Parts: sequence; C-alpha cells; structure tokens
Amino acid sequence: MKKITTRIVLGIAALGLATSVCAQVKPEDQIKFRKAAYSFAAWNSGKIKANLEGTYDAAQVKAAANAIAGVANSGMGALFGPGTENAIGDQKTSVKPELFTNTPLIVKHSGDFATAANALVKAADSGDVAAVKAAYGDLGKSCKACHDDFRARN
Amino acid sequence: MKKITTRIVLGIAALGLATSVCAQVKPEDQIKFRKAAYSFAAWNSGKIKANLEGTYDAAQVKAAANAIAGVANSGMGALFGPGTENAIGDQKTSVKPELFTNTPLIVKHSGDFATAANALVKAADSGDVAAVKAAYGDLGKSCKACHDDFRARN
Repeated sequence: MKKITTRIVLGIAALGLATSVCAQVKPEDQIKFRKAAYSFAAWNSGKIKANLEGTYDAAQVKAAANAIAGVANSGMGALFGPGTENAIGDQKTSVKPELFTNTPLIVKHSGDFATAANALVKAADSGDVAAVKAAYGDLGKSCKACHDDFRARN
Repeated sequence: MKKITTRIVLGIAALGLATSVCAQVKPEDQIKFRKAAYSFAAWNSGKIKANLEGTYDAAQVKAAANAIAGVANSGMGALFGPGTENAIGDQKTSVKPELFTNTPLIVKHSGDFATAANALVKAADSGDVAAVKAAYGDLGKSCKACHDDFRARN
C-alpha cells in the first residue's frame, strides 16, 4: 500500500499537478514544448541504445540518463492543459482524448516513467552495464505503456 | 590556467566532442533534436523566471534546473554535425555559419552553459532564493552570449 501511495505521489509530482506555481504557457506552446521534451528524451534514449549495442561510454550514458530523468521529472502534466487536445495551427499532436479524462492512468504512467528514468540514472552511475541494460528495458516498457494508451500514432 | 583548462575540458565534454560512441543521427534529425533540446530548456527557464517573480516553489525550481542541466550536459555538439549548417526540408535553423568554424568559441560557450546550469542546480538544491536568482542571471548571460555569436535570429 505504501508503495502504491508513493508511486501515486511521484506520479502527481512528475506530472506537475501539485505545483501551485506555473508559468502561463499558451496551448500551442504547451504542444510545442511537450513534443520538444519527448523528442529530446528520444535522442538521449537512442544514445543509450547505441552504447549498449556498441562500445560503452559511461560518461555519455550517465549524461543521457540524466537528460531523460530531467524530462521525466519536469512536470510534463503542465503541458497537457485544456485546449491542447487537438492540433493548433502548425502544432500537430498525436495525443488521444483519453489522456485528458483518465487522470488515474496518466498519473500512473507518469510515475512509472519517472521511477524508470531515476532507476536508469542510478544504474548508469553504478557503471554496471547489465544493470543499465535492465533499467533501460524498464524505461522502454514505461514509454510503450503510455504510448499504447495515449498516443494515436505509435 | 587550471581554471581555463577545466573550462575547456568541460566545454569539450558538454559538446560531446570527446565521445567515441555516437548514435548515427541524420542531419535533419540533428536540427530537429537540437531545436527540441533548447525549446525544452526554454520552457524550464520560463518556469524558474515565474518562480523568482512570483511564489517560490522549491521543488519546481529544482526540477527545472535539473532539466536545463540535462540539456547543457547532454553533448549538444553531436547535433551540430556536417550538413546541418542550413535548413533541410521542413527543419529550419537559425544557426550562423561561424558556429561550424570557430571551435574554440563554441567550446567556450558550451562550457559556460554547462557551468552555469550546474551552478543553478546547486543553488536550487540549497534552497537559497537569492543564490538561485544570481545563478539564473548567470545562466541567462551564458545563453545570450552564445546567441549573440551563433544565432542569426535573436
């Protein structure tokens, strides 16, 4: 029970739902910034994959893990505000409408993403390549689980 | 002298110039990812600014500082490879050609960005709002210095 509560609290924190201070961001910029964040995370994920499949550069993996954790812990929920359910002008979005109505599920996915990203940072810091591989696998699962539920284009 | 050497080493590391492992990223994706990274950093910078001007939420500032440091330490130099000097298809870029020829200056700016971002993380962790304000000012200076030299649209 404690574990579940911790995960929910982490999920809410990761989503930024509990933050009282929030810079006012226009809906079109929310879409722009959230796509930018996941795109930046994807680049860093690709670097970790390349390291695990090729020569392992511990410093690069640490930096990439921290970058992904930076995204996962940044309060991405603030970028899924009202009015961002559909494309605005040039800002397309692949988000499913369910994301805006199924709060418990998005809190769970957000918490899982933060948990997996933070575990990856710990593994990268340890220098244990097998641990990084396992943590990277878990991170991928957390990404896929959220995409399966909330991304129209997979 | 030692300080200068440290800054150069940090700059090279931050740029990713010294990394032997590098996921192959197409030039158009390099432009996409670098714009995404700076866009993500800009969103987090905006949150810190809003916190300093309004009610201060220590957790949000810490998360935002870590997000910016994640960008600054991610090896952005790998996203300024050959063939990314100009727009490719839909991927526009405001980079000046000088960035690709003046290596010492981009290494300096990159190192200054990483130094300022890491100092901001330390300040945010300390909970000293005046220190965060000063560190945030330094971060802004490092952004501006690089934009002045290497961004066509300011």
